[in-house]
Amino acid sequence: MAAMTTLFEAPFVVFMGDVTDPVYGKTGLGLVQWRASDCLGQIRLPGCGVDTGVPELDIPMAQSLGARTLIVGSAAVGGRMPDHWVESLCHAARLGLDIVAGLHIPLSILPGLTAAATAGRARLIDVRVPPAGIPVGSGAKRSGRRVLMVGTDCASGKKYTALALARDLNAAGVAADFRATGQTGIMIAGAGMPIDAVVADFLTGAAEVLSPDNSPDHWDVIEGQGGVFHPGYLPVTIGLLVGSQPDAFVVCHDPLRRHVSGWPDYPLPSVTAVIERTVLLGSLTNPAIRCVGVALNTSRVPASERLALKARYAEETGLPCVDPILDGTGLIVDQLRREFGA
Amino acid sequence: MAAMTTLFEAPFVVFMGDVTDPVYGKTGLGLVQWRASDCLGQIRLPGCGVDTGVPELDIPMAQSLGARTLIVGSAAVGGRMPDHWVESLCHAARLGLDIVAGLHIPLSILPGLTAAATAGRARLIDVRVPPAGIPVGSGAKRSGRRVLMVGTDCASGKKYTALALARDLNAAGVAADFRATGQTGIMIAGAGMPIDAVVADFLTGAAEVLSPDNSPDHWDVIEGQGGVFHPGYLPVTIGLLVGSQPDAFVVCHDPLRRHVSGWPDYPLPSVTAVIERTVLLGSLTNPAIRCVGVALNTSRVPASERLALKARYAEETGLPCVDPILDGTGLIVDQLRREFGA
Repeated sequence: MAAMTTLFEAPFVVFMGDVTDPVYGKTGLGLVQWRASDCLGQIRLPGCGVDTGVPELDIPMAQSLGARTLIVGSAAVGGRMPDHWVESLCHAARLGLDIVAGLHIPLSILPGLTAAATAGRARLIDVRVPPAGIPVGSGAKRSGRRVLMVGTDCASGKKYTALALARDLNAAGVAADFRATGQTGIMIAGAGMPIDAVVADFLTGAAEVLSPDNSPDHWDVIEGQGGVFHPGYLPVTIGLLVGSQPDAFVVCHDPLRRHVSGWPDYPLPSVTAVIERTVLLGSLTNPAIRCVGVALNTSRVPASERLALKARYAEETGLPCVDPILDGTGLIVDQLRREFGA
Repeated sequence: MAAMTTLFEAPFVVFMGDVTDPVYGKTGLGLVQWRASDCLGQIRLPGCGVDTGVPELDIPMAQSLGARTLIVGSAAVGGRMPDHWVESLCHAARLGLDIVAGLHIPLSILPGLTAAATAGRARLIDVRVPPAGIPVGSGAKRSGRRVLMVGTDCASGKKYTALALARDLNAAGVAADFRATGQTGIMIAGAGMPIDAVVADFLTGAAEVLSPDNSPDHWDVIEGQGGVFHPGYLPVTIGLLVGSQPDAFVVCHDPLRRHVSGWPDYPLPSVTAVIERTVLLGSLTNPAIRCVGVALNTSRVPASERLALKARYAEETGLPCVDPILDGTGLIVDQLRREFGA
């Protein structure tokens, strides 16, 4: 495979601050779930109500256990990082741990952190900053195969579906890599492209850089962003779609949602509408694009209703429908094999 | 109207450097054509082969005539501004003229220019830098009317069509403003949104900021960018389309072009295909969106063939077809009145 440079070194510890709502700890929870073997433990400040389930450490313990990196796994409520979090990061940096975060601001402007990093020879790594030199999209055909997650909305399971699908392809003996497009995905993969932070002119080019030429049977499993009918974010979604030139896509859907999350005047599009629109738009750079499955988030659906619900979507689309967390994505792996050969 | 803040003060002089190819002097030529009454003259360095036709000045003359601003109207070949151009800008800034440019780099990093501007109390104004605080697009309905230029490609006459249409609407007694989305348009209007320089997440929001609420009969005539089938730039086009929520659009087309300029593997889409796709995508935020005309660039078509060519597009689309430069846009103004009332 054409490996992307890894942004940071393992093993790492995940810093959870003192958040109390799991929503604000999503990144840390995802990291621990998908990179358990590289995670030495968690650092939680007094009052923290989110537990990722890994060993409890403090910063000196993390250092003595050989941690190379501290990853900020919580989002600060209100967007501004509290002073006592910054103190912890400074402490870790002075001890030589690289600091990784996906803030809206660069780590370097947090008070004292640059000096601490210099003193400890630590790196400050912002995963939300796109790399330099992204070209304009060329639209040229690339070798290798690509499957993109698209959603009926934001936060509909695209990252988890992509991670599960890459894992299940690998388990089935198919060469595949997860390609991250958002901050949590980038932290999990250690590489990727923060697609929503790219300047508009270079969106398609950024998607091209994310999934470069590869061997013919290799699959890039690309995390999606936004939604093709999303009134705010659709340009990001469409740029990623056209630049990725996917052979295949999976529609990720929360069956209980009724409107676009945060946009109550915009009803949630149907899975069928998203399939049709994705084929229409994706055909520009890959006329053979097709849907290979539906990934439902059924976590809030009563267990007794899940099977019927998946059957309904499978019938509507003529495609496999799974809950990637509960079922895995084996049926989608099978569909990819049927459609594209082993 | 809800006026946007003017970025720079008139009167101005246009700085042409020493370019020899009119392609590199497009901005200056456009400025002189569309803002003649605010332009005191041109400053050309020895060897300059592009003449905008306005009086020849040097920097001290410009100052003594009352120029408030010097606008860089030429693009540097190869992208790097030559030292002797920078010297001229420093000279003007020391004399107190504000400097306006749409470079890919900020004016402030040109050697000596910040010091010269400080000494002369001059401002350095980069029109390619988006304003701070652009929100994510809300998709909420705004008051007032909007007509967007869309193209079958980049550089197909969108800016000139929009400028001509705003002028012709005003001449017909209809309240209308040109809304600029690119650097030359922004220099002509003195305001606007450099839409292709906006970070992807905020594209639709940037388009919303560009054409805010207005009185019910007022038209914003919005310069378009890129093309809905453009393999590189379509996310910019689609973000602008969805954020603008236009009531109407005009398709701008170069009838002699066969493929997307610079993308030889991508055939130019037909006007009809662009109409259909624009309606499909634009319906998300304005279900009543419709095409009101076709603007052809017939400058390279033999004069004897122009009438038949326009008739052919008019018949194909059932809409008025004009060359906005040669014919004006009166037929499109009429169509807007028929469709939307006086």
